[in-house]
Amino acid sequence: MSINEVCSVFGIWGHPDAARMTYYGLHSLQHRGQEGAGIVVTDGERLKGIKGDGLVNDVFDEKKLDSLKGNGAIGHVRYTGKSGIENIQPLLFHSSSGSLALSHSGNLINANDLKHQLEMQGSIFQTNTDTEVLAHLIKRSGYLATKDKVKNALSMVKGAYALIMMTENELIIAQDPNGLRPLSIGKVGDAYCVASETCAYDLIGAEYIRDVEPGELIIINDDGIHEERFSLSGSNAMCTMEYVYFSRPDSDIRGINIHTARKKLGKQLAIEANIEGDVVTGVPDSSISSAIGFAETAGIPYELGLIKNRYVGRTFIKPTQELREQGVKMKLSPVRRVVEGKRVIMVDDSIVRGTTSRRIVRMLKEAGATEVHVCISSPPMTNPCFYGIDVSTHEELIASNHSVEEIREIIGADSLTFLSVEGMMKVIGKDDLGKNCGQCMACFTGEYPTEIFPDTPLPYEKEMK
Amino acid sequence: MSINEVCSVFGIWGHPDAARMTYYGLHSLQHRGQEGAGIVVTDGERLKGIKGDGLVNDVFDEKKLDSLKGNGAIGHVRYTGKSGIENIQPLLFHSSSGSLALSHSGNLINANDLKHQLEMQGSIFQTNTDTEVLAHLIKRSGYLATKDKVKNALSMVKGAYALIMMTENELIIAQDPNGLRPLSIGKVGDAYCVASETCAYDLIGAEYIRDVEPGELIIINDDGIHEERFSLSGSNAMCTMEYVYFSRPDSDIRGINIHTARKKLGKQLAIEANIEGDVVTGVPDSSISSAIGFAETAGIPYELGLIKNRYVGRTFIKPTQELREQGVKMKLSPVRRVVEGKRVIMVDDSIVRGTTSRRIVRMLKEAGATEVHVCISSPPMTNPCFYGIDVSTHEELIASNHSVEEIREIIGADSLTFLSVEGMMKVIGKDDLGKNCGQCMACFTGEYPTEIFPDTPLPYEKEMK
Amino acid sequence: MSINEVCSVFGIWGHPDAARMTYYGLHSLQHRGQEGAGIVVTDGERLKGIKGDGLVNDVFDEKKLDSLKGNGAIGHVRYTGKSGIENIQPLLFHSSSGSLALSHSGNLINANDLKHQLEMQGSIFQTNTDTEVLAHLIKRSGYLATKDKVKNALSMVKGAYALIMMTENELIIAQDPNGLRPLSIGKVGDAYCVASETCAYDLIGAEYIRDVEPGELIIINDDGIHEERFSLSGSNAMCTMEYVYFSRPDSDIRGINIHTARKKLGKQLAIEANIEGDVVTGVPDSSISSAIGFAETAGIPYELGLIKNRYVGRTFIKPTQELREQGVKMKLSPVRRVVEGKRVIMVDDSIVRGTTSRRIVRMLKEAGATEVHVCISSPPMTNPCFYGIDVSTHEELIASNHSVEEIREIIGADSLTFLSVEGMMKVIGKDDLGKNCGQCMACFTGEYPTEIFPDTPLPYEKEMK
Amino acid sequence: MSINEVCSVFGIWGHPDAARMTYYGLHSLQHRGQEGAGIVVTDGERLKGIKGDGLVNDVFDEKKLDSLKGNGAIGHVRYTGKSGIENIQPLLFHSSSGSLALSHSGNLINANDLKHQLEMQGSIFQTNTDTEVLAHLIKRSGYLATKDKVKNALSMVKGAYALIMMTENELIIAQDPNGLRPLSIGKVGDAYCVASETCAYDLIGAEYIRDVEPGELIIINDDGIHEERFSLSGSNAMCTMEYVYFSRPDSDIRGINIHTARKKLGKQLAIEANIEGDVVTGVPDSSISSAIGFAETAGIPYELGLIKNRYVGRTFIKPTQELREQGVKMKLSPVRRVVEGKRVIMVDDSIVRGTTSRRIVRMLKEAGATEVHVCISSPPMTNPCFYGIDVSTHEELIASNHSVEEIREIIGADSLTFLSVEGMMKVIGKDDLGKNCGQCMACFTGEYPTEIFPDTPLPYEKEMK
Repeated sequence: MSINEVCSVFGIWGHPDAARMTYYGLHSLQHRGQEGAGIVVTDGERLKGIKGDGLVNDVFDEKKLDSLKGNGAIGHVRYTGKSGIENIQPLLFHSSSGSLALSHSGNLINANDLKHQLEMQGSIFQTNTDTEVLAHLIKRSGYLATKDKVKNALSMVKGAYALIMMTENELIIAQDPNGLRPLSIGKVGDAYCVASETCAYDLIGAEYIRDVEPGELIIINDDGIHEERFSLSGSNAMCTMEYVYFSRPDSDIRGINIHTARKKLGKQLAIEANIEGDVVTGVPDSSISSAIGFAETAGIPYELGLIKNRYVGRTFIKPTQELREQGVKMKLSPVRRVVEGKRVIMVDDSIVRGTTSRRIVRMLKEAGATEVHVCISSPPMTNPCFYGIDVSTHEELIASNHSVEEIREIIGADSLTFLSVEGMMKVIGKDDLGKNCGQCMACFTGEYPTEIFPDTPLPYEKEMK
Repeated sequence: MSINEVCSVFGIWGHPDAARMTYYGLHSLQHRGQEGAGIVVTDGERLKGIKGDGLVNDVFDEKKLDSLKGNGAIGHVRYTGKSGIENIQPLLFHSSSGSLALSHSGNLINANDLKHQLEMQGSIFQTNTDTEVLAHLIKRSGYLATKDKVKNALSMVKGAYALIMMTENELIIAQDPNGLRPLSIGKVGDAYCVASETCAYDLIGAEYIRDVEPGELIIINDDGIHEERFSLSGSNAMCTMEYVYFSRPDSDIRGINIHTARKKLGKQLAIEANIEGDVVTGVPDSSISSAIGFAETAGIPYELGLIKNRYVGRTFIKPTQELREQGVKMKLSPVRRVVEGKRVIMVDDSIVRGTTSRRIVRMLKEAGATEVHVCISSPPMTNPCFYGIDVSTHEELIASNHSVEEIREIIGADSLTFLSVEGMMKVIGKDDLGKNCGQCMACFTGEYPTEIFPDTPLPYEKEMK
Repeated sequence: MSINEVCSVFGIWGHPDAARMTYYGLHSLQHRGQEGAGIVVTDGERLKGIKGDGLVNDVFDEKKLDSLKGNGAIGHVRYTGKSGIENIQPLLFHSSSGSLALSHSGNLINANDLKHQLEMQGSIFQTNTDTEVLAHLIKRSGYLATKDKVKNALSMVKGAYALIMMTENELIIAQDPNGLRPLSIGKVGDAYCVASETCAYDLIGAEYIRDVEPGELIIINDDGIHEERFSLSGSNAMCTMEYVYFSRPDSDIRGINIHTARKKLGKQLAIEANIEGDVVTGVPDSSISSAIGFAETAGIPYELGLIKNRYVGRTFIKPTQELREQGVKMKLSPVRRVVEGKRVIMVDDSIVRGTTSRRIVRMLKEAGATEVHVCISSPPMTNPCFYGIDVSTHEELIASNHSVEEIREIIGADSLTFLSVEGMMKVIGKDDLGKNCGQCMACFTGEYPTEIFPDTPLPYEKEMK
Repeated sequence: MSINEVCSVFGIWGHPDAARMTYYGLHSLQHRGQEGAGIVVTDGERLKGIKGDGLVNDVFDEKKLDSLKGNGAIGHVRYTGKSGIENIQPLLFHSSSGSLALSHSGNLINANDLKHQLEMQGSIFQTNTDTEVLAHLIKRSGYLATKDKVKNALSMVKGAYALIMMTENELIIAQDPNGLRPLSIGKVGDAYCVASETCAYDLIGAEYIRDVEPGELIIINDDGIHEERFSLSGSNAMCTMEYVYFSRPDSDIRGINIHTARKKLGKQLAIEANIEGDVVTGVPDSSISSAIGFAETAGIPYELGLIKNRYVGRTFIKPTQELREQGVKMKLSPVRRVVEGKRVIMVDDSIVRGTTSRRIVRMLKEAGATEVHVCISSPPMTNPCFYGIDVSTHEELIASNHSVEEIREIIGADSLTFLSVEGMMKVIGKDDLGKNCGQCMACFTGEYPTEIFPDTPLPYEKEMK
């Protein structure tokens, strides 16, 4: 409920209405970032971009979309709302030798170091993003061909990146050597498209082709698609939380459908929890699938015990502390008739600070639930993430400092069950076809797939100094 | 999916932050109208109002809310987006003898006649609403007391109305003699509140007290609550579609919880349909409950076969016809992995023109469903509604001109089952305590609870001439 | 400097781009009201209007103008910025028997009485304007023809009005029986136009035809122009301040050019003042002409001793009290090099409260003027105006309570000269052709041309109760 | 009438409300640029800026000004409206070693060359301005102290610049070696201020101290003011058009008051022209002073023969070609009563393309003038300007290709007189104290004070490639 992904990317090449397709593509990825959006197009001669604060349809109107003409486009939605419009992506840099646009999902963990070195050499930065470091590295590279400049630059950065770049004449796509963030390729008519999640393909009528491999560099231009690798090291370490929380239920990652994965996590959780109750309810929206799976396996009816208030936009006026204490709610309402007098099994995807869980448990009890059993479809989160997720320091992670029993006490639940690491691996350790797929479980286990730098910026500190 | 309610009302008396409470109340009722919103407050001396196009949180910001000071407030969200801001409610009329604000949910079926007569007598109308007719009737009434003026005016209008009016010193609440639209009373601290749906009480931390009875007139002021009747005729004829489609799952109407009712409708539908399939899926959001009920009774797994794209706001840019034909979707996406190779039972709440159903069936088949069985949790809709729902003429209602088999053919389903009228009555004919409750089933049966006038305006023609 | 006119009107009939012509017409009248603007057009079948706060080009853009299609249009700019958009004119009323739009410059002095009576009879008012009273009187009149309804209504109102009304099929123009506010008729191609000031004709390329006479009612429609009188009583009593202050220098009123009149007032003032000085300077913009006339007659050089800061729009951020005391200025700056070490003769058009004059005198002295002699091109203002000018109560008029010597002391001038009433009559008592023309000099003499009611609202209290 | 200055600068140091003072300072300089405005402040620790399109009071509101806290500020208004917000000044660059803001009036004539070289070395440019070149040169300079970096950078650029830069701790002010654009220093309380024109000091209550000398570099910080020179070469070559056209009448440049200079130019012109007429009229606003001087010397009455329509803002809707041909005017109206039947002497400041003059002459004749004699208070403009004025190529300058008699014929005047170069030098060749002051008269004589580069960009092409 309180974890946030930083950013999502989309790109398309070879479509006469590239900007509009990107608009719809970004729209399907909107759940990954609601604080800013942007689109850059190329008409073969120059790049032009529009970006702004808020949702995709806050930023764009018919007139603006119509002004973005061209066959190639890249777009971006972002989570972090800090600082100015210059930090909203795609970043766009012009020079007399051509322009370059970048959309990045993830986090470059040695960006601070690199930026400092570049400034010492006279570079002037326009943004506070880690992504701009890449642009300067590319620009300063001695190589002649754009592809070689990019490879040279990528060899210097470390961390997580699903990356789409665009010049006047091509898309350049790169996935970090550990494949930490999802990125795949699809096709719609003769056009290629690239997206953080496959749900984008369904929405725009495209066909999914394949995932971008860790360490892969792909170039798409009017001559077609050109695949090569810029790194042979690394391992497959897809972020586990993509399955548990971030991605849309209708997306597939590494061959695994998210809804199906969540339902299985719920089923596994029901087996591990093995508790009694009268109704099962999920915390909308991300835990609905796991709650349904839980209910099916446990043989307990699934009910809408909690309702999400849609229409809570960015400009929504939050209740004052006083009104909140009087019982004014904002995002979630309990359904009194459903939970009154019942033993409620409440399924959620994760516990970060514990405050949300405590509020929901209290809400259910005030609405008449006699017992509230909290079942979490992932293991306790004990370590921060450096790869693009706003999961905070050890201090802020409740499971980093408290036992399960202490957490149960804090959130006021009658019982608390976390899915085991083994249970989770059992479910998402193999894809739908039974193939093994590596996962980054660092936030649960502390085993990070990359080296970690002393001053690696946490992603929620993305405004670098 | 394509029926629309016209409007919803909220009022509160005796709360120091009446406007803010109304803001949250309206927010919980937002699903009943997204095209306009307004709030009027009284500080005991004068009425002041703010209204505008769009969602509640498009119209109001902190500054505007802060400017609405007073202990009493009424609000309104409306569905119909036509014409100017003057038609957004609450309507507010000032005169040297005091001001009057009106919030109305429903439709006055003899409004055109009355307006014509009033204009002949020199009245100047400010809006195109049926509601303003009431204001003129009240203003012209020879009675002295406001209560008597209102009763006098109500004796002249016919149709459906859940009505909240406000002067400097009181709320005046009225429910039409057939009780066609829901309206109930709650209490939060020492303040009384009135709302179209009980979900508003949960969100603002209020306690539900009781429904407003058909033909009842209630006055709430600083002396307390005063209940009387202005009409003894009429019968209990709550709109059936409130249960099936309009209301939020967490609301109760006449003692029946909506989610529970829908789940029961789904269960009854499963018994009546008696068909085989691999997965059950509901059309989000209104058919989720009935689909879950169906799945439970049928013993078939419930899956998320269709995903709703949130973030489709008022300013969303619709795909061009060309892009739509290329497969760009807007509101719903199929989940390929869930439906591929499966016999899908798709549960929906109603079929109006059939176009939406046809689109969804095709979408599911294109995503790989081998069979699509459509099950509708209400009977065929064969007659227009005159009481505030945008259900159109006979010509537009597919079930008015086609047999079930013809409809099945048109929408491309492998089978089509409607719930029977008897099945429906079995479920919502009695409240949760077993008490009989009358229903308006006119759109299914043609039996209207009131007389119908030759020029009764359909609600979607609310802009009168 | 601190007197303000309330409102100005424009109308046109028979032009294919009536709205755009009205836009330019209003633009030339913008000096008479910067707080709100509106245009209503008719296409022969229905009236449509747009209005808003601010300048004409704040309110309208290309798209809005394009949406106002029709051959007839009326417009309005207004001074008073109080209350809501509903009070911005033209007022527009729709009914089943046709629509009516009204643009009014002036003030109806018995509007409060009439409004009270109409409300007793059940009328609901939409605005706080005196003008709406006319609409109700017209609507309630028993006569059949619009013309007769209007005459009937005008027979009941008293005060000042230059009035343009419009139905689907005609313009109806009326001037009050004393002719207090300017109104004239012009022609551009085959179209007739009507405007508060003749400068509108020059700007739109129209030819001035004639002034509308006191008590005259003119109807313009596709059949041509129809002239008649609704009142035979009354006298010619044009507002003197139109010549002194309000109107643009390039306008003619009753055959007198404003610039020429002001220059003559300055010449007469030079004769009456008979003082010595080194430079003459006018207070921009309205006193430039009289200062030039003064300089010519006095044989003293005219210099730009004061500069007006253009670009002080409605949204200009006024200096705080603290910054003002530190010397930050807003509208006027002295020209140090011009006034330093000089005896300055400062010509202004009027003194209302005296605060502006005091500030300017101090500003000139601080810039180095050794003496400042203030010469005012009108007599002392001792009485309030009830006819549409924001000249306040006796208490606020400095000349109502102080001798000329006391005022001189207060404003810190070395001498103070007002033009005499006789001097003024000598200049503007006859038109440019030598014809006598009556003037309303009530603010100087207290002789009002109409009866005055006990509760006659002052124009700056236009928001009636 | 159709020459445009590019940009104006303001700065202040040591004032607790630096941003607000800059707001008022920029407001007084608004006539030098209406297309964009910006303010950057420092609170000693960081720089923060706000900028936008339009007038100063379009860009700033109370809330924005309040958010700009600090004791130091610089601001900018600009003329050229092309391209995006990034090109509006002050430019603001952040780096880990500190921030730098720049406000520039003028034109760097070797900017294209320098930019190309910098890009070759890996610099990424954020704007299309010549000014950014300076920032990169400063940033890349090997010197340690900011002052030395700036001097090093200034040694590489050529052209015209009145320049104010700001770091966290100081203002850095520079004037190009020829002193082409005005820049001076004032004091208000303990704070120093810097402005393009001295009228800013009068408006904010500051005292003028002295002009910044050609080649001078001044640093202002909390320790006081530090003056030195970065260039010893160069000559005093103030732009003549500042006196004739750009500056406000209440400003002084190099000891000469603008109004006084213009009046003298008019007097000299009257002597040189030596023609007969009935009235003298100036083209508002810039030619009023010279017209009054002309009238005084010629002994012919000065009249308002032309009126400027104020309120023509950026959003003003221009008349269509069709309406223009029907006589709809925009900026200027003739005063018929003043010019009808008269021989009019029309005084203007310059003729660029001749189109404006032709339009005004025709306007006056259509309003009844029997003769129109055009007198120009500057010599024929025959050469383009490279120093920051939008005076175009030889081809566009009518005087570059036509004799005076041909121009007279084209504009339709009965006679045409230009001031002689000698006459002009006689008036502005010495300051008010009789001291000689050098002038740039290149646009009249072709003698440029700097070398000119083959690809020197014209200022209206400020968007560099």
